[in-house]
Amino acid sequence: MGIVISTFEWVPPFAQGNVKDMRPRWALAEAGLEYEVHPLKPGEADGADYRRWQPFGQVPAYRDDTVALFESGAILLHIAQLSDVLRPRDTQEAADVTSWVFSALSTVEPRVEGMILPKLFNAGEAWVAGWTSHAERLVELRLKSLSAHLEGRDWLAGRFSVADIVMVTVLRGLRNEPVLARYPVVAAYLQRGLARPGFEAAMAAQIETFAAHAPA
Amino acid sequence: MGIVISTFEWVPPFAQGNVKDMRPRWALAEAGLEYEVHPLKPGEADGADYRRWQPFGQVPAYRDDTVALFESGAILLHIAQLSDVLRPRDTQEAADVTSWVFSALSTVEPRVEGMILPKLFNAGEAWVAGWTSHAERLVELRLKSLSAHLEGRDWLAGRFSVADIVMVTVLRGLRNEPVLARYPVVAAYLQRGLARPGFEAAMAAQIETFAAHAPA
Repeated sequence: MGIVISTFEWVPPFAQGNVKDMRPRWALAEAGLEYEVHPLKPGEADGADYRRWQPFGQVPAYRDDTVALFESGAILLHIAQLSDVLRPRDTQEAADVTSWVFSALSTVEPRVEGMILPKLFNAGEAWVAGWTSHAERLVELRLKSLSAHLEGRDWLAGRFSVADIVMVTVLRGLRNEPVLARYPVVAAYLQRGLARPGFEAAMAAQIETFAAHAPA
Repeated sequence: MGIVISTFEWVPPFAQGNVKDMRPRWALAEAGLEYEVHPLKPGEADGADYRRWQPFGQVPAYRDDTVALFESGAILLHIAQLSDVLRPRDTQEAADVTSWVFSALSTVEPRVEGMILPKLFNAGEAWVAGWTSHAERLVELRLKSLSAHLEGRDWLAGRFSVADIVMVTVLRGLRNEPVLARYPVVAAYLQRGLARPGFEAAMAAQIETFAAHAPA
């Protein structure tokens, strides 16, 4: 069977390139590992079969010949162990990578999504402007801390790791937001990540899945 | 040196019992492992020394004789490995626990905190009511999925694990919210978690730290 990751069969253009199977696709590209996708048909994410694999109906979920997982952070820590390129070299490097994967998902991503999702999905509702202004101040606190850590570093945990894959995909949500430009060290880190061939390969692969299932 | 976790020296009463060093304290109590705390003095969380340990100035951070970590999810996965009680028994159980730890922190906690924190910290601002109503609908989607998974199960990944420690501390934020009562399977799971002696030990230990440093 080999490695299989779930994705949606198709999403609208504004979401293409942002769906979170970008993360395992990117890690697998860096690792040079082959994989297949399981594209979810409309409604399939809410069905009992898929919920046994991913209880919240989200993507990505992952399986290989030995194990099944869900949540992009868990999937990336697992993929790193399969790869001579991505596997941490010692106990402290593994601890740093794991800490930063959680940090990207638990400390940074909620602030970023909190700021940008209501502008996309709730445009015009009365509370959006007030909330967004508050949420941008919360994002800025994170960018300030992240900038201090990245000063003089190319990657979060020394050399490139799965933590950078998660953090770059999180920060990419801010690429058109003025708040990012106020933190040039973070903006340069984002550019460094997006310039990797592995990111480009993941993007091309995700778009290919959606193109194959585009509505007539 | 042994195990050391950081916490704040003191927080106001409404925050006591909710600070996130509750999670490693609980795990260490379940594991029967001794630890010391490093209580941060006012301002210390923003200092360069602490930022080298925890780049965002948050608590908890963790160190022992072999490794340093931050982010409660990373710390709990590490503690589980130190403990015959909490260590997963096979590869799939480890994958389930890791998936659920990420799920609690990345899929559930942002929705819960998004709903309850503005009511605490931004009371009276014009956007809070509209946002909170939206945020409660988002929480409800998660509770619905979680309820379906927990139906017929005592714990998220089969037997009790560090994933339950994280999820229970996340859901505890909803204990006085009407939305929780609409999901009795989840409410019963929360009560099951909070009834464990390990939770009570963690609570007593956290309160003891704050009491030792209470303002005159």
